[in-house]
Amino acid sequence: MAFHDTLRDFQRSQQSLLCIGLDTDQAKLPGTLSGRPDAVLEFNRQIIEATHDLVCAYKINLAFYELLGEQCWSLVRETLALIPEGIITIGDGKRGDIGNTSAYYARALREGYGFMASTVNPYMGTDAVGPFLQDPDHGVFILALTSNAGARDFQHLRTRTGPLYEVVVRKARGWNTRGNCGLVVGATRPHQLRRIRQLAPSMPILVPGIGAQGGDLRRAVRYGCDRYGEMGIFTASRSVLYASSGADYASKARAAALALRDEINTLRGLR
Amino acid sequence: MAFHDTLRDFQRSQQSLLCIGLDTDQAKLPGTLSGRPDAVLEFNRQIIEATHDLVCAYKINLAFYELLGEQCWSLVRETLALIPEGIITIGDGKRGDIGNTSAYYARALREGYGFMASTVNPYMGTDAVGPFLQDPDHGVFILALTSNAGARDFQHLRTRTGPLYEVVVRKARGWNTRGNCGLVVGATRPHQLRRIRQLAPSMPILVPGIGAQGGDLRRAVRYGCDRYGEMGIFTASRSVLYASSGADYASKARAAALALRDEINTLRGLR
Repeated sequence: MAFHDTLRDFQRSQQSLLCIGLDTDQAKLPGTLSGRPDAVLEFNRQIIEATHDLVCAYKINLAFYELLGEQCWSLVRETLALIPEGIITIGDGKRGDIGNTSAYYARALREGYGFMASTVNPYMGTDAVGPFLQDPDHGVFILALTSNAGARDFQHLRTRTGPLYEVVVRKARGWNTRGNCGLVVGATRPHQLRRIRQLAPSMPILVPGIGAQGGDLRRAVRYGCDRYGEMGIFTASRSVLYASSGADYASKARAAALALRDEINTLRGLR
Repeated sequence: MAFHDTLRDFQRSQQSLLCIGLDTDQAKLPGTLSGRPDAVLEFNRQIIEATHDLVCAYKINLAFYELLGEQCWSLVRETLALIPEGIITIGDGKRGDIGNTSAYYARALREGYGFMASTVNPYMGTDAVGPFLQDPDHGVFILALTSNAGARDFQHLRTRTGPLYEVVVRKARGWNTRGNCGLVVGATRPHQLRRIRQLAPSMPILVPGIGAQGGDLRRAVRYGCDRYGEMGIFTASRSVLYASSGADYASKARAAALALRDEINTLRGLR
């Protein structure tokens, strides 16, 4: 089944557009886990157990795991093994390289780690993105307009056919021949998110930045969803993971996730 | 010492602008290594032993190692440990993320793996690149104009102030406040390389694509070097690593590297 269908079906059955970013930072773990050699994995386990019925997806930003050196590979694999069947798993590595090399990144993300979807940087163009798109089951989220301040440096540059991020969106539309290409658009850019949704009415849009980065959830949901109130994936990381630094971190994470899921559902008119 | 000075000094003492990309592909290893559990490391060891007096740098493209899963971390670390002191080591990961996350990638490349330099994707702008630039000892090569066909999709786009890659080059010039910022420009784009060298007369330029990708070495050297015939780093991977698929792979790799080093030196008027 093409990734878009898998995503839509699961968002419906789960009644959630929430994604939690498992960007687990050793320096921010609750004191109750300190000193444990398996602290990161145990934290991920507790967060997943406390939130898995509330999310459509978990996203793992590989930077947080690469920092842990030789543990990276097994930690990511073991974390993915904790995620119940059906939930979308997104490998957020923002990779991209010349074609033959990008194929290795795609295999590492898809077959090695075993993610159901990946984020990809578009700067190097079609052959950098292509290997990720080959398998219709695998979702590919192209960075269009990111949530950070530096997005202004290049992504907003005017070209003859609109700002660079619009050129990327139109290109990504063309890359979506197998029903598995999506976009990344930061929640901190509601005006542009609206425009991008117009340009790509049915593609999934991964929208980071709704938590600690301060994006406007109301407009993110309004503009990020398709006309059925679906296909937006709204990602919070720090605001859920570190809702409490005490022993109650998992229940507080659940409360934060529940509030976000419900708020997103209210905003999209589901309840 | 700032990275630019380290590079220049070493290029002079080594009398070489050649970089070998240790993009070791398990599927292409010579038959004599087949079945050995340490085949990739042993191949790297033989290549490094056969070529280390001929190069100014080794570049490791992380895609080739990430594909190997849990071996990735130790293989890269052990390969770096085989490289003699003084030779520049470049971690080619083309990373880039929002500021706080990019800082983790920068630490993984610099302190984790222990590379002396990294390649970085500029699409996410200043805060994505910033953490890599903080340590003046660490070189940062910004993707400006890449060697692949997909470079045309976005990098050549016209903006008000020139094509996107020129905007990136001008931005990178501004990022070079600590003497450690460089550029990546494919050898397959000699005309644009010339223009980029004019825009950034003293920054190091990493020039991939002189081997299997068919870049024009004569023009790459002519346009990629600074006015002293230095600060270009010309990278070959497949044409050196797989110069022979037989038991003589190391001596054939040496012969290929020697020919390239000498040709580059002739072209820059050193001999």
